[in-house]
Amino acid sequence: MTRDELYKQIKAKGSFLCIGLDSDIAKIPSHLQGHSDAIFEFNKAIIDATHDLCVAYKPNIAFYERMGSHGWDILQRTLDYIPDDIFTIADAKRGDIGNSSRYYAETFFNTYDFDSVTVSPYMGHDSVEPFLSHEGKWAIILALTSNTGAADFQLDHGSSNEPLYQQLLRKSSTWGSAENTMYVIGATRPEMIKEVRAIIPNHFLLVPGVGAQGGSLEEIAAHGINEHCGLLINSSRGIIYAGKGEDFANVAREEAMKLKVKMEALL
Amino acid sequence: MTRDELYKQIKAKGSFLCIGLDSDIAKIPSHLQGHSDAIFEFNKAIIDATHDLCVAYKPNIAFYERMGSHGWDILQRTLDYIPDDIFTIADAKRGDIGNSSRYYAETFFNTYDFDSVTVSPYMGHDSVEPFLSHEGKWAIILALTSNTGAADFQLDHGSSNEPLYQQLLRKSSTWGSAENTMYVIGATRPEMIKEVRAIIPNHFLLVPGVGAQGGSLEEIAAHGINEHCGLLINSSRGIIYAGKGEDFANVAREEAMKLKVKMEALL
Repeated sequence: MTRDELYKQIKAKGSFLCIGLDSDIAKIPSHLQGHSDAIFEFNKAIIDATHDLCVAYKPNIAFYERMGSHGWDILQRTLDYIPDDIFTIADAKRGDIGNSSRYYAETFFNTYDFDSVTVSPYMGHDSVEPFLSHEGKWAIILALTSNTGAADFQLDHGSSNEPLYQQLLRKSSTWGSAENTMYVIGATRPEMIKEVRAIIPNHFLLVPGVGAQGGSLEEIAAHGINEHCGLLINSSRGIIYAGKGEDFANVAREEAMKLKVKMEALL
Repeated sequence: MTRDELYKQIKAKGSFLCIGLDSDIAKIPSHLQGHSDAIFEFNKAIIDATHDLCVAYKPNIAFYERMGSHGWDILQRTLDYIPDDIFTIADAKRGDIGNSSRYYAETFFNTYDFDSVTVSPYMGHDSVEPFLSHEGKWAIILALTSNTGAADFQLDHGSSNEPLYQQLLRKSSTWGSAENTMYVIGATRPEMIKEVRAIIPNHFLLVPGVGAQGGSLEEIAAHGINEHCGLLINSSRGIIYAGKGEDFANVAREEAMKLKVKMEALL
């Protein structure tokens, strides 16, 4: 999917919501837990109830991988079930070198037909570049994550003027372009979005941490929106596990609608 | 597997060789390529021919993941086929936060019964800690990798006195211990092993880059060996693709033997 196609979808839906499919057998409604195909049925119901309110779905690969090869089959069927005009993100945080990185890219772009994959940048340019050579596909590079451990290295200055995540943005934004690279910027540090935009005004940001982790949508939007919108705000648990009963999909829809209504006003 | 058990195996075999099972349908001998279970047959032959010469096997997960769910079945059967006394490394370079990181650890330690998994540290302590809470299991943290991109961030000083990989070693070595943490240190920068050992004298190092990538075993050993040996030297392509014909397993054995003989002299 191109940046223009993504932006067109955002304008048409009045939404820049990404829904995280962190689907966990221990957390889905109890009436589904005995189902022989529980996780897929859960995903299907969530997608049916929310696809007109969001522009992206983001399965977290850890949740599927843990189930063994069966989990990958569920992932494939979930991906097939997502409407074609919706942007898909494999939240896999992969990163290796040479052939290995090339094969991770092929995994998510060819074996599975995701639009994008999240990539860990610790190993540098040759770990990211294989994800940038697939037409219409995107690398979403971890920059400033929403967890406390982000302070260990990403926010570390040494005695430098720039914390690592800013050096990362500056350097890695030259590897590709705003047409094939996005960045993960956690919502838990909204004051830093301004500094991010000073370095990368044009790139899309994938922003986790709104909702369950406490980030503010309004603060993010105030500094983060650019002329292509430039934001995908992710909510996972806050939407998919909002309801515990048989009406869980409707409750998920209500939560997604609350965010969508706010987003429409912000656009 | 405990550190003492690993060291006992190293002494018994006179080897600290790790063989990387980067098994690729495009690179295995042509007579196997038409086989219905080609990759597993290839792995089986390599393991049969080399298991008395090495102390660890390291399947690179990218090569299996790319095949979809079928690849994970091959991985499982390969793991089952590796003798129990050999240390197994899932070279997966995973890293996420919270439940996601916990689930990656469960994937490789429970769903698949690997002894260890390689972990990318960019997201900090809470991305690594879930890998440190499994009895007898190991996190192998990327520190200084063997690729050119290592210079982008790992070797970057900012205006600090310490490059990032040294800050990483200093900080992350307090998260666990030398009994559950190892580090990836590429063989392509052997002069830095001395600096690594100044910070972490006791940890095992997993050293890729000997052979195909040009690193010197003798240089690594000179500065890297400690009282528990403390080194696992990996070779992948240099061993498993040394032969192209029907005798490929014997040729792989010869290459493994050359390294093993050198290692025995160094121990």
